[in-house]
Amino acid sequence: MIPVAIIGASGYTGLELIKILAAHPEFELVYAATSEGETRVEQLHPSLEKVVAMPVEKADAAAVAEVAQIAFLALPHKTAMGFAAQLLERGVKVVDLSADYRLKLEAYEAHYCPHIDREHLPEAVYGLPEFYREAIKTSRLVANPGCYPTASLLGLLPFIPYIKADTPIFIDAKSGVSGAGKKLSATTHYVTINENVFAYNPIKHRHAPEIAEKIDDKFDTQVQVNFVPHLLPVTRGMLCSVYMQLETELDPVEILEDLYRDEPFVRVRHRPVDIKSVAGTNFCDIYATMNGTSLFVTSSIDNLLRGASSQAVVNANIISGFDETLGIPKYAYVP
Amino acid sequence: MIPVAIIGASGYTGLELIKILAAHPEFELVYAATSEGETRVEQLHPSLEKVVAMPVEKADAAAVAEVAQIAFLALPHKTAMGFAAQLLERGVKVVDLSADYRLKLEAYEAHYCPHIDREHLPEAVYGLPEFYREAIKTSRLVANPGCYPTASLLGLLPFIPYIKADTPIFIDAKSGVSGAGKKLSATTHYVTINENVFAYNPIKHRHAPEIAEKIDDKFDTQVQVNFVPHLLPVTRGMLCSVYMQLETELDPVEILEDLYRDEPFVRVRHRPVDIKSVAGTNFCDIYATMNGTSLFVTSSIDNLLRGASSQAVVNANIISGFDETLGIPKYAYVP
Amino acid sequence: MIPVAIIGASGYTGLELIKILAAHPEFELVYAATSEGETRVEQLHPSLEKVVAMPVEKADAAAVAEVAQIAFLALPHKTAMGFAAQLLERGVKVVDLSADYRLKLEAYEAHYCPHIDREHLPEAVYGLPEFYREAIKTSRLVANPGCYPTASLLGLLPFIPYIKADTPIFIDAKSGVSGAGKKLSATTHYVTINENVFAYNPIKHRHAPEIAEKIDDKFDTQVQVNFVPHLLPVTRGMLCSVYMQLETELDPVEILEDLYRDEPFVRVRHRPVDIKSVAGTNFCDIYATMNGTSLFVTSSIDNLLRGASSQAVVNANIISGFDETLGIPKYAYVP
Amino acid sequence: MIPVAIIGASGYTGLELIKILAAHPEFELVYAATSEGETRVEQLHPSLEKVVAMPVEKADAAAVAEVAQIAFLALPHKTAMGFAAQLLERGVKVVDLSADYRLKLEAYEAHYCPHIDREHLPEAVYGLPEFYREAIKTSRLVANPGCYPTASLLGLLPFIPYIKADTPIFIDAKSGVSGAGKKLSATTHYVTINENVFAYNPIKHRHAPEIAEKIDDKFDTQVQVNFVPHLLPVTRGMLCSVYMQLETELDPVEILEDLYRDEPFVRVRHRPVDIKSVAGTNFCDIYATMNGTSLFVTSSIDNLLRGASSQAVVNANIISGFDETLGIPKYAYVP
Repeated sequence: MIPVAIIGASGYTGLELIKILAAHPEFELVYAATSEGETRVEQLHPSLEKVVAMPVEKADAAAVAEVAQIAFLALPHKTAMGFAAQLLERGVKVVDLSADYRLKLEAYEAHYCPHIDREHLPEAVYGLPEFYREAIKTSRLVANPGCYPTASLLGLLPFIPYIKADTPIFIDAKSGVSGAGKKLSATTHYVTINENVFAYNPIKHRHAPEIAEKIDDKFDTQVQVNFVPHLLPVTRGMLCSVYMQLETELDPVEILEDLYRDEPFVRVRHRPVDIKSVAGTNFCDIYATMNGTSLFVTSSIDNLLRGASSQAVVNANIISGFDETLGIPKYAYVP
Repeated sequence: MIPVAIIGASGYTGLELIKILAAHPEFELVYAATSEGETRVEQLHPSLEKVVAMPVEKADAAAVAEVAQIAFLALPHKTAMGFAAQLLERGVKVVDLSADYRLKLEAYEAHYCPHIDREHLPEAVYGLPEFYREAIKTSRLVANPGCYPTASLLGLLPFIPYIKADTPIFIDAKSGVSGAGKKLSATTHYVTINENVFAYNPIKHRHAPEIAEKIDDKFDTQVQVNFVPHLLPVTRGMLCSVYMQLETELDPVEILEDLYRDEPFVRVRHRPVDIKSVAGTNFCDIYATMNGTSLFVTSSIDNLLRGASSQAVVNANIISGFDETLGIPKYAYVP
Repeated sequence: MIPVAIIGASGYTGLELIKILAAHPEFELVYAATSEGETRVEQLHPSLEKVVAMPVEKADAAAVAEVAQIAFLALPHKTAMGFAAQLLERGVKVVDLSADYRLKLEAYEAHYCPHIDREHLPEAVYGLPEFYREAIKTSRLVANPGCYPTASLLGLLPFIPYIKADTPIFIDAKSGVSGAGKKLSATTHYVTINENVFAYNPIKHRHAPEIAEKIDDKFDTQVQVNFVPHLLPVTRGMLCSVYMQLETELDPVEILEDLYRDEPFVRVRHRPVDIKSVAGTNFCDIYATMNGTSLFVTSSIDNLLRGASSQAVVNANIISGFDETLGIPKYAYVP
Repeated sequence: MIPVAIIGASGYTGLELIKILAAHPEFELVYAATSEGETRVEQLHPSLEKVVAMPVEKADAAAVAEVAQIAFLALPHKTAMGFAAQLLERGVKVVDLSADYRLKLEAYEAHYCPHIDREHLPEAVYGLPEFYREAIKTSRLVANPGCYPTASLLGLLPFIPYIKADTPIFIDAKSGVSGAGKKLSATTHYVTINENVFAYNPIKHRHAPEIAEKIDDKFDTQVQVNFVPHLLPVTRGMLCSVYMQLETELDPVEILEDLYRDEPFVRVRHRPVDIKSVAGTNFCDIYATMNGTSLFVTSSIDNLLRGASSQAVVNANIISGFDETLGIPKYAYVP
């Protein structure tokens, strides 16, 4: 058993990490922390009473390094890189669920804040296994992708080789409210969300540069990515609709199947995907169809799992040389 | 008071028509019918007990002509045109909520079925007041627009003069389940819809040709319309996201405001619209923003009201020479 | 037209008051205020854009007295009685939606706080028209009932004459989240409420003494009222289930019909009621059935309308000598 | 590994059985059947693609007996007992999720239909482990409790010794819609359930005699059980509110804790329970409080798991001599 730690145990992604790691056959959760500490996991998360029993510490990198070989950071951006730097220096491998190591320096600073760990940023590997598996294997610092980029990239990357030159990509993304976190705001008040739907930060969301950068990284292509997220009256799950123009007509399902047939956590479907079939799992379901040379791709994930915590544990499995499906949730919350 | 009739009183749009017409200051609802008759309005719709009391007849065009000057048809396509033809021959004006008179003959028959009222089809006027008001005034046969085309066209028509040549339009539409009607199906089972979202009939929905034809009709422009509807876990309301490429950068809100400033039922917003603010009303709320020359327009309506019944009564107001806002719902179901 | 004012225009019940009064044929809304003022109604409530246009003042009793004959107080308890006292002294009639005048002094101070308007408290009339109509007619201070007491009392009062001596009443109440108001809290976060249900303040809620006191007031009977509210994943509507033991078997629907047949806003049903049929209206729907001498009564209301704002306007209608149904919402949010 | 079979694989409880058994460390799912067969598990339940791969047979008791030692029957009542009789005769142990073996003969026939397996009925053991564990251990026919009785009995049985003589029990139960099954009906249409709540079959539901009979069986006490179920706008989960009168005041949480402290699947809470904390698990959460001698108990379960499929596998664990927690879901669908 490899001892692992979670820093940031109080939020939704922290809870999902606890659930996956507590049940994992090869990782042993030995340390859980928040910024305040002085509580217990089953007090922070009453649904874990009689399931998990362990203390919650005040987060401390040195204490982590004493007991754990891998640390999962479920922290806000900026806070995360502070811990990551200290952990890496102490020999602890890091899977960071924040945005801090997802972008190149310039893009990061343009969209977030000054980067305070320029030393380690260059070695970070983007933790989307279907496209970065080999690099993850030997990494000690994995930048776990954002939820929107995960669903979007798995849907659109297969078609970048066929995109019509100089045409933009439009992504209409729809997310459950758990993606907005536990923080109280008028936006997440029940009455605001229920029986409602609306876009937010259209075309200005920080996940757009993340998507554009990975397209460029994999295919050496600059594409204008127009990303519009919407909030849905559901708790979990995310659906990304991608619209783009290709050079020619082709069979998009065949292209997806050729690429993903042997992938354990991508399912190519023959009709439009839904979020219920993936909620509770690490799966990404994808379907695509064309109208002349116009392409529509629809992909779905659980925003907290494939979009955060279960993908993080997949990355930890890969780093550790385990079968990447080990201990990863596969049974959807259906019905 | 002008006496009016509803044929098709049992469905959701029939119910909304009853509610609006029963409270209307200048129309008197004198006749309500279904295919079976032999019941009462307050039995079909128990929420109307102690509100509306009237019999429901077995639908009969001759009986309508004896008592009413205008008939609202809330019927399935094909059934509607059978009644419309008979009513027009008997001197009754018709506002048809079905698809039967929305398209030109060829397009109709390609997407629906053989047309059985070719005589009156050419005189039908498309009942989108903001763009066809003058023609509606003198019409005796109004084809009430579909819900998806209403929200889409109000959002995208202002930008057709600026569209980049030979580029497609993508419409990502999201509808509440009431749009699917009362009919039982696995799709409308609570468990299928709740905590879920999915596309259906992507790029093949019959509202796409309706949108394309009206663009052509108003601007003499053929545009490829890629229309993808989704079902949302809400009962009422519809949000349409339009993505298109323009020739140049411009201020899209200004264009909307110039066009709609004096329209009583269009509200140009300065931030993304939601469906709650229009549910229960005839309003269409619209917002738009650009990224370079890529345009995003988001518009919202109540699918049963602006997308069907209240727009039908607006059309009847116009036909009758009334102020078009007379008796039309304006107070949203907020909170 | 009688000029009226709203103090407390920013909350949900304030919004509902604005909507009803703006459309009312005999009241003219001339003044709307919040504790801060300096805004407009259509800015506070964007769904009212192009519907209502008026300034929002900083609340001031003297300013109200200059322009209005009746004031509606949609304020927190304690704040309300401060304004009520000043308004009454200046000759303005008051319909108070808070708890401040609902209870006798001792009960009020036991469950809320010291009462600061002991002068007017004795003359306040409880604004449940079906049981206090005559007293309301001549009142200048109406204590509008709480939402839970409204639905509970309309359901259980008809059966108090038949209750088995010395047996308790159990009320299992279920409310939509709008009843908790706009205030942000972990309880009203979407993720807490969605796909969930739970009791809160069981047996300790302050609406229990309000119910018990009115039973005593009308029937001179002390009954133990065990009241347990629950929060439902819906925005609007409230269902109260009352369980009690009677002396004998009887036909409970007949008793309800005898009492409520001519009431314009109570509908006795022949099967279990739902909240959809009353949401958006001032109706209270009621059904009851027995098992031996055990009685089950189920009643439903819109918590913001019959449970607050529309009942307040009914009370204002009665005070003003109008037909009490004037301008009161009757068309439910169905479907 | 003990080979097991599922008859009735297409419904919600069949799906949950598949999910639990496919992941169970000591049971091997070797046979799955429906009334029609000729499909595959991953076709019936697309969320299981790339998770479970096995054929679905046309249900046949002889075929089951050839391959399996235990059969789970997820069938409608009446159909179930037909299979159970054949399976028992062939030496297959049966865990029956239907109502067929839950009641004594007379009560069964009064509330359901003539019993066609009177031979085995007397040996059936009621599968509520907390109260029938010893009998289950040596049984070959377990009658898995209904969902409503499970939540109700776990909440109220601890207080039966203290109940005031000749007073009734009132149970106000609230269930998610998955309890109504996949069958299409106006009741389960999304538009009927969403933003709504209502009682159904009040005081006449067939789960009332099941509850009353078990109270009598355990405590030799006849109590009038007034059971009123409600449908909630949620998919999964059930909350039961029990109201009863006790002889004296007592500390109800202490009584619950004394009884359930060592139970692996009951959690006594110190504040009102919710359904989110148990959805996805076999837990029953319980809280209770008193007002004088009036008692309120609130208990929550996942209606498809503790109320059906996971409790069935717990029973199979007990029959097989395994730790009863083996392979049973404990991680809730939170958030």
